[in-house]
Amino acid sequence: MKTLTIGIAGGTGSGKTTITRNIVEAFGSEVSVLHHDSYYKSHDDLTYEERTKLNYDHPNSFDNDLFIEHLRALKNGESIESPVYDYTVHNRSKETERIEPARVLVVEGILIYAEQAICDELDIKIFVDTDADVRILRRIMRDVKKRGRTLESVVDQYLTTVKPMHEQFVEPSKRRADIIVPEGGRNRVAIDMVIDRIRGYLRSIEE
Amino acid sequence: MKTLTIGIAGGTGSGKTTITRNIVEAFGSEVSVLHHDSYYKSHDDLTYEERTKLNYDHPNSFDNDLFIEHLRALKNGESIESPVYDYTVHNRSKETERIEPARVLVVEGILIYAEQAICDELDIKIFVDTDADVRILRRIMRDVKKRGRTLESVVDQYLTTVKPMHEQFVEPSKRRADIIVPEGGRNRVAIDMVIDRIRGYLRSIEE
Repeated sequence: MKTLTIGIAGGTGSGKTTITRNIVEAFGSEVSVLHHDSYYKSHDDLTYEERTKLNYDHPNSFDNDLFIEHLRALKNGESIESPVYDYTVHNRSKETERIEPARVLVVEGILIYAEQAICDELDIKIFVDTDADVRILRRIMRDVKKRGRTLESVVDQYLTTVKPMHEQFVEPSKRRADIIVPEGGRNRVAIDMVIDRIRGYLRSIEE
Repeated sequence: MKTLTIGIAGGTGSGKTTITRNIVEAFGSEVSVLHHDSYYKSHDDLTYEERTKLNYDHPNSFDNDLFIEHLRALKNGESIESPVYDYTVHNRSKETERIEPARVLVVEGILIYAEQAICDELDIKIFVDTDADVRILRRIMRDVKKRGRTLESVVDQYLTTVKPMHEQFVEPSKRRADIIVPEGGRNRVAIDMVIDRIRGYLRSIEE
């Protein structure tokens, strides 16, 4: 079984999750999803206080060796145990999540195209490109309304690490994309195109 | 018969023609192509000398009324007689070219998204986005090698009208696109996606 691997990258609040959900809704168990942000490095060596001060928006904050190992295993038809990141303690939790291999593998994350070794594993690299003002508004709504964070802490993190890391690593990584989708999850025309591409792939391997 | 209309826009030398050719090669007579640059305004009122001084890179240089009339006629299943532009005399020639309606209509041109009325007729708006340095190199190769123009005249026209009009009209019109394709005609992943979208459309209307 050959797996079609589709990367979905883009800055915070760009609409990656909505596109991913649309793909999963269209194809169900034909699709597995691997989330890069489940692979933040484990930091049992640091105190909680120290962990809150880490820069989580830098490419080095990810355990890319494990991520690529899991990505390749899924492509080889093996199931994996994805780490589960616990944002409340800023550390990898003891739990894992089983991910089964599928004919279509969506690989989702802000910084996945910043790593050439990840890019090399992807058949289709989609970058969701949404204006920075729209993205920060979505992030505020999500973090303040759903994650109970203060507006001040969201703004502070955004200006201290999210924005500089976006400009240094995320924006330049767009050059590695095959397709750029403006305005993420609301772009029905682009989503239909991705869905027809997947459908075409599934038909081609059935023939 | 419903027609799927696909716009392909992007600056000079971006790779629009190569993508269009790939689509035509994949679907043959299922596809008709309407070229915006066949619809430069007729200028029988001006001398040759006066016509050489016109700005051909401004949206107003096109006969958009006729263009949209023809676009709608093709969508209605009627054939049209496209004007043929004669670059050697900088004017519309006496000839026309018959274009038959088809289930897929590709509408190609640098400035098509600068007109909201054209955008309104398109189901899928693709913008081919290629760096300006690569685009001017392709334009030089094309105009000097194939069209017998001097390097000086190509550079002069580029700096006088092509570049300023690109920045004023083409680049902002990218915001109206549904999909942005980096590096045009060599982007096989993007071309495959467009082709599978068309195949999916043709299947959907056959069912």
